[in-house]
Amino acid sequence: MEIRIESAGASPEPLAVTMRTPGHDFELAVGFCLSERIVAGPDDVATVAYCLRGDGPQEYNVVTVTTRSPVDLEAHRRAFVSNASCGLCGKTALDQVEIACAPVASDLTVTAAALVGMPATLRAAQKVFDVTGGVHATGCFTPDGTLRVVREDVGRHNAFDKVVGWAALAGALPLTDAVCIVSGRVSFEIVQKAAVAGVPVLGAVSAPSSLAVQAAERLGVTVVGFLRGDRFNVYTHPDRVLV
Amino acid sequence: MEIRIESAGASPEPLAVTMRTPGHDFELAVGFCLSERIVAGPDDVATVAYCLRGDGPQEYNVVTVTTRSPVDLEAHRRAFVSNASCGLCGKTALDQVEIACAPVASDLTVTAAALVGMPATLRAAQKVFDVTGGVHATGCFTPDGTLRVVREDVGRHNAFDKVVGWAALAGALPLTDAVCIVSGRVSFEIVQKAAVAGVPVLGAVSAPSSLAVQAAERLGVTVVGFLRGDRFNVYTHPDRVLV
Repeated sequence: MEIRIESAGASPEPLAVTMRTPGHDFELAVGFCLSERIVAGPDDVATVAYCLRGDGPQEYNVVTVTTRSPVDLEAHRRAFVSNASCGLCGKTALDQVEIACAPVASDLTVTAAALVGMPATLRAAQKVFDVTGGVHATGCFTPDGTLRVVREDVGRHNAFDKVVGWAALAGALPLTDAVCIVSGRVSFEIVQKAAVAGVPVLGAVSAPSSLAVQAAERLGVTVVGFLRGDRFNVYTHPDRVLV
Repeated sequence: MEIRIESAGASPEPLAVTMRTPGHDFELAVGFCLSERIVAGPDDVATVAYCLRGDGPQEYNVVTVTTRSPVDLEAHRRAFVSNASCGLCGKTALDQVEIACAPVASDLTVTAAALVGMPATLRAAQKVFDVTGGVHATGCFTPDGTLRVVREDVGRHNAFDKVVGWAALAGALPLTDAVCIVSGRVSFEIVQKAAVAGVPVLGAVSAPSSLAVQAAERLGVTVVGFLRGDRFNVYTHPDRVLV
């Protein structure tokens, strides 16, 4: 799916192409724009629409997000177009991987008992996984373990973006009262997306990367990994987990 | 890790930034350039080097590939910089996801018995997974089930690229006599990378995507999925698997 940005009366311009599982496409587009900080907040999204011109196989594969404020697309493309000289080693493209974001401020706590029940609740809600065995999921829970929403996608970052987009379109941002569980690993990017969305506790069935743990420490996100059976590891900000 | 291209005496320019597990960085850089068709063949790679300037945490995170022929970097960035008007719906950025590549021509066959043994052989060689529980692997096998090389990475595409880069630097391309096994799912991109490297049989512990199966059909790659225990599914070009 190609995501395009139409800002302040300008022509739509391509922002990104993502391999995605069709479904909740508008949530994906809005969630991507928010969690990658293309737009500042949900109020800045004016409309989201498919760009349909009878394009056959690519119909429903182009989504245009219209923003109220101008978007500096060039800034988001800098990593790809800058003529970085070698003297700038690691100071251009690499630095742009990091998004400016304030640490998550939330007094939310979650009990170990609630936490260990969440993966099974998420798995039971993964309807696309049931028939494919090959897609990721992100679940958004209340701290007592009630599933608020689940989104599935072939890409784990997309599944998370769909939840962020759902929250944005439902007026539920920031998610400072939520626990998010992902079906796979925790990447640096997912920690950043969680922080931008205000998620205080991020749990995963599998491992976090070392870069993800460093980012979570800095961004005030509690990362819980290897949530299997009645066991788990808490990597950062453990005060939010009541053991 | 940032991959830069220095071609025909021009200044190095950034090509891509990838989240990777350190190790076999030169193989990753060369494999990426080959499997994404940034360079035409292994002979076109003149040198691969770290770009070290005492950059602290980013040291060893920038690799420059010097090519013998000019590289049209703009062509590879088009998806990000073109001012596509809406009338081009799905015909610009989306089409560039596909790489021009001839179908794999190989008479290689592999027995079911050899195939079902490969995942366990691969798993036993995954030393980084042993200590992290969180990285992917790609193994390159002879058809009788002998492991030629294993490469691990936090990203499954990187793990595959490292194997392609290994083959390139070892003078073993094309891999028309090899069976490659990946530890996770088979994406469209992995099928393309396999086809560019000449790999006739691609096996996976998990599922292929529908787009991966379509691409494999077109590109002459035999895709085997859900390789678990003594069972598997063959999705495309089944003649190479002797059951």
